[in-house]
Amino acid sequence: MTNNNHKSISGMPSLSLFRLSLYLRYVKALECKGVESVSSKELSHRFSISSALVRKDLGFLGSLGKRGVGYDIAVLKNGLISALGIDKHWNVALVGAGRLGTALVRYTRRAEGPFRIAAILDKYPQRMTKARDLDMEVLHIDSLPEAVQERDIKIGIISVPGSAAQDVADKLVAAGVGAILNFAPAYIEAPDGIFVHNVDFIVYLENLAHHINTNSDIAD
Amino acid sequence: MTNNNHKSISGMPSLSLFRLSLYLRYVKALECKGVESVSSKELSHRFSISSALVRKDLGFLGSLGKRGVGYDIAVLKNGLISALGIDKHWNVALVGAGRLGTALVRYTRRAEGPFRIAAILDKYPQRMTKARDLDMEVLHIDSLPEAVQERDIKIGIISVPGSAAQDVADKLVAAGVGAILNFAPAYIEAPDGIFVHNVDFIVYLENLAHHINTNSDIAD
Repeated sequence: MTNNNHKSISGMPSLSLFRLSLYLRYVKALECKGVESVSSKELSHRFSISSALVRKDLGFLGSLGKRGVGYDIAVLKNGLISALGIDKHWNVALVGAGRLGTALVRYTRRAEGPFRIAAILDKYPQRMTKARDLDMEVLHIDSLPEAVQERDIKIGIISVPGSAAQDVADKLVAAGVGAILNFAPAYIEAPDGIFVHNVDFIVYLENLAHHINTNSDIAD
Repeated sequence: MTNNNHKSISGMPSLSLFRLSLYLRYVKALECKGVESVSSKELSHRFSISSALVRKDLGFLGSLGKRGVGYDIAVLKNGLISALGIDKHWNVALVGAGRLGTALVRYTRRAEGPFRIAAILDKYPQRMTKARDLDMEVLHIDSLPEAVQERDIKIGIISVPGSAAQDVADKLVAAGVGAILNFAPAYIEAPDGIFVHNVDFIVYLENLAHHINTNSDIAD
């Protein structure tokens, strides 16, 4: 789960923004199936939220829907891509080339999205045997400032042990990234203007455990 | 990010529940530092939400705070643990013993929380060389029903390729798990009553990209 060190943008609440990403995934899946349009009601059902909220979210994209017809899939996809700012490429530095880091690099590549792992760094690059088949040199962490500058890197991913996470975050900020995605099991802090997401998947497990535990019904 | 196939519990909104997990992490960190109490104002500042919302969230735990003193760390920690249903152990089956799956097993073990990886399964257990140093046999996926029953498994984690995810989800449901955490890059669906989180970290990157792109200010 996420800790918003930042808050939001252009009047769009953070949660709307996350939903835009979820809509995009779903719209892409529909496109692959040859579906040509989707209604706010279908999106509402798919994501267990109200149609009004779907229409409000998509309202941020401008006027895309036709009454009674729903949203054209291609138009909606492009609108979402543009609204999310992913109609261009983003270079990413990943720090921590262990097992999790290596898995994240592969995952990002497979996603074939706008995010490119432009540098992989580690404190002990020569030890990183797991990263050997990534077809990319693992750089020493001290090369971070040059890498960020030369490779136009805007986002840093942290996948180091918790004890090293804040130090790596400080280095990323000093090197000039604008945003950090932290997978280390430690909260990191960054100056105002640097966007940070702390991801901790144990939080998801706790959430599921609570649901099973109470095993009760549904009221958002 | 998460797709709630379910919604919520006992009148507690899903987002409150996630915040309880975040508070717990923070409270544990404070405890390690020897801090003895925390105010709703401090929590509010830490998580960029209103004090009123913090008090509302913690209100679900019953009366824990003292006026002007804040919350006692030990009392708050126990209240959070109990509210989250993690004052007991939960056995988890992980399906997909590749790089990501192996990283998730290690992460879960390091977290030393209530979640125990009680079974690791794969379609090709003998190929899973990365999982060899996990000190645990990788079972064939066909053993899932027995494993779930014999090892009292309540939660399934999916870390297989996207194309196989729904099939694995169906098998987990048939075997009797109550909740699924899906890391495969594909949405999965499950019958009513089975709680599913679809996790896709590319969504976080998209969110950060949008923030950098608009680079504007803060209004939640």
